[in-house]
Amino acid sequence: LTAIGSLPVVVDAMGGDKAPTEIVAGARQAVDELGIDVVLMGPPELVGDTRGLELISCTEVIGMDEDPAKGVRRKKDSSLVRAAELVRDGQACAMVSAGNTGATMGAALLRMGRLKGVHRPCIATPLPKPGRAPGVLVDAGANSECTPAMLVQFAQMAAAFSTARFGIAEPTVGLLSIGEEPSKGTALVKETHALLAEAGSGVSFFGNVEGRDLLDAPVDVVVTDGFTGNVALKTLEGSLRFIMDRIVSVFGTDEETKAAAKVLLPHLAPLITELDPETFGGAMLLGLDGVCIISHGSSSALAMKNAIKVGHDLATAGITEALSSAVHVD
Amino acid sequence: LTAIGSLPVVVDAMGGDKAPTEIVAGARQAVDELGIDVVLMGPPELVGDTRGLELISCTEVIGMDEDPAKGVRRKKDSSLVRAAELVRDGQACAMVSAGNTGATMGAALLRMGRLKGVHRPCIATPLPKPGRAPGVLVDAGANSECTPAMLVQFAQMAAAFSTARFGIAEPTVGLLSIGEEPSKGTALVKETHALLAEAGSGVSFFGNVEGRDLLDAPVDVVVTDGFTGNVALKTLEGSLRFIMDRIVSVFGTDEETKAAAKVLLPHLAPLITELDPETFGGAMLLGLDGVCIISHGSSSALAMKNAIKVGHDLATAGITEALSSAVHVD
Repeated sequence: LTAIGSLPVVVDAMGGDKAPTEIVAGARQAVDELGIDVVLMGPPELVGDTRGLELISCTEVIGMDEDPAKGVRRKKDSSLVRAAELVRDGQACAMVSAGNTGATMGAALLRMGRLKGVHRPCIATPLPKPGRAPGVLVDAGANSECTPAMLVQFAQMAAAFSTARFGIAEPTVGLLSIGEEPSKGTALVKETHALLAEAGSGVSFFGNVEGRDLLDAPVDVVVTDGFTGNVALKTLEGSLRFIMDRIVSVFGTDEETKAAAKVLLPHLAPLITELDPETFGGAMLLGLDGVCIISHGSSSALAMKNAIKVGHDLATAGITEALSSAVHVD
Repeated sequence: LTAIGSLPVVVDAMGGDKAPTEIVAGARQAVDELGIDVVLMGPPELVGDTRGLELISCTEVIGMDEDPAKGVRRKKDSSLVRAAELVRDGQACAMVSAGNTGATMGAALLRMGRLKGVHRPCIATPLPKPGRAPGVLVDAGANSECTPAMLVQFAQMAAAFSTARFGIAEPTVGLLSIGEEPSKGTALVKETHALLAEAGSGVSFFGNVEGRDLLDAPVDVVVTDGFTGNVALKTLEGSLRFIMDRIVSVFGTDEETKAAAKVLLPHLAPLITELDPETFGGAMLLGLDGVCIISHGSSSALAMKNAIKVGHDLATAGITEALSSAVHVD
């Protein structure tokens, strides 16, 4: 353990659809069940009951639907901006928010700054692979427009993240495209393919992967631009939720199906848990000089507890130094 | 019914993973069960038993993994090129293939030509929406790089396709992006949003939709570039197949789960059928001067029968004229 592990995780108490109640409850669970030190950030009159946790007071909140750039620029005493300052100033090892994703990125980028040599920070999201170690999808939405050089850095950083987060010793990287052949896809994909395939790319490059591979990926990291990544991630989550909802609705049709469901549900439970975004503990912004974990907007106490653990563990493991090294391969 | 409805549908007997057996079987079913006139195209020695159907003889086949451009250029007597010529020459009302998608597009484009004013043909694929009329995703993979003007035409043509294929009187169009706001997404998406929102766009524009909306879309048509569309479609299909496989594997764990599955399967069957690509009857190339239906590479006899019906019905309904009118709005 490095010294950073003794610092608290700062939690945006007002971020997320279920803030502050579920957020504070998750923070309390992280303290009680995991022994992680946590401080809350938010306006005391809005946060209300802190369940005995320390609250650092600020006066503003950036709303879920507020324009991220304007919010960060104008609300300098918001919970997001102040949380990012706490990490910058060495008073917290990581920040966690389930709030406005764009504003969280903006606040973290502005206050923590980029790691040396990093073109743009990106969002790395765990990809569930039931029965196996999760994969990582990068960029899940930070940068709609990308260059090949950006994607190469995303791959390098996401591989380091895969090692730190999931213990994969030598993560393999796949490039999301519309066919296995290097000739398939956009100019961006073809140029990135060529760069990743070079001996000096710093990653173990598998080649192209396709949308159908995401849940069963033959690779540990799937790299793509933030537009495609966001569309793919939401398509994945949406189709899983859709089919689960439909199946569950059949389970309650009559007494016979209810009895049958009782038999099957214990068998399906592990799969349902593994596919539930609540379990993963959030996405991480890669490329900043500090740890910032972005949790789902719909995060419950469980998701928040897991996100706090992820932030704490990654900070303790020295993820920032690992990312910094990853982009400096030659 | 126009005169075109009396022409046969020409089927690429050698296209698809299960060719020629399942392809010929599906063609036979279309004749016997639907009363649709069908001719097969292929080398007699490879097709073998035609089940009594007329076979037009050619000497070449473009393989599933063959380079599409080279294949079409070099194999002028291939089943795909000759099938496209039959449509061009007014001897068939539509062509259907489960073979090499790129080569099918190439053969159809080269031999049939584009409709007047169409920048580029695109692939329109049905999107299942269980319990409701299917949606349409366009472009599902024909054009990796697109311009805003291309996407506007895709939207116009896909709306006409939605009307002809699914009977939607005034189809609504959504633009695939990473947020509802017009400010979200790539430059391509933002510029296309502005064009589609204009009064003279010729389509009923809903606004942006997201990946999570695909199976439950609030619109009849989802428009995007062929790279994003292909990734989204494969992600959708892959995640549905993944979860279905996992659930089915639980069903056979022991006697108790087998009995429970027997109770539930009849309730799940309609959903499974609606989500099965075999049921849809294939995608259509929009923007050509002739009807070309592209069926899944894994097409069985059922999928082929459905694809033949779709080709026949759309040709009979005058889809080519409808598409031509759709792109000439001012």
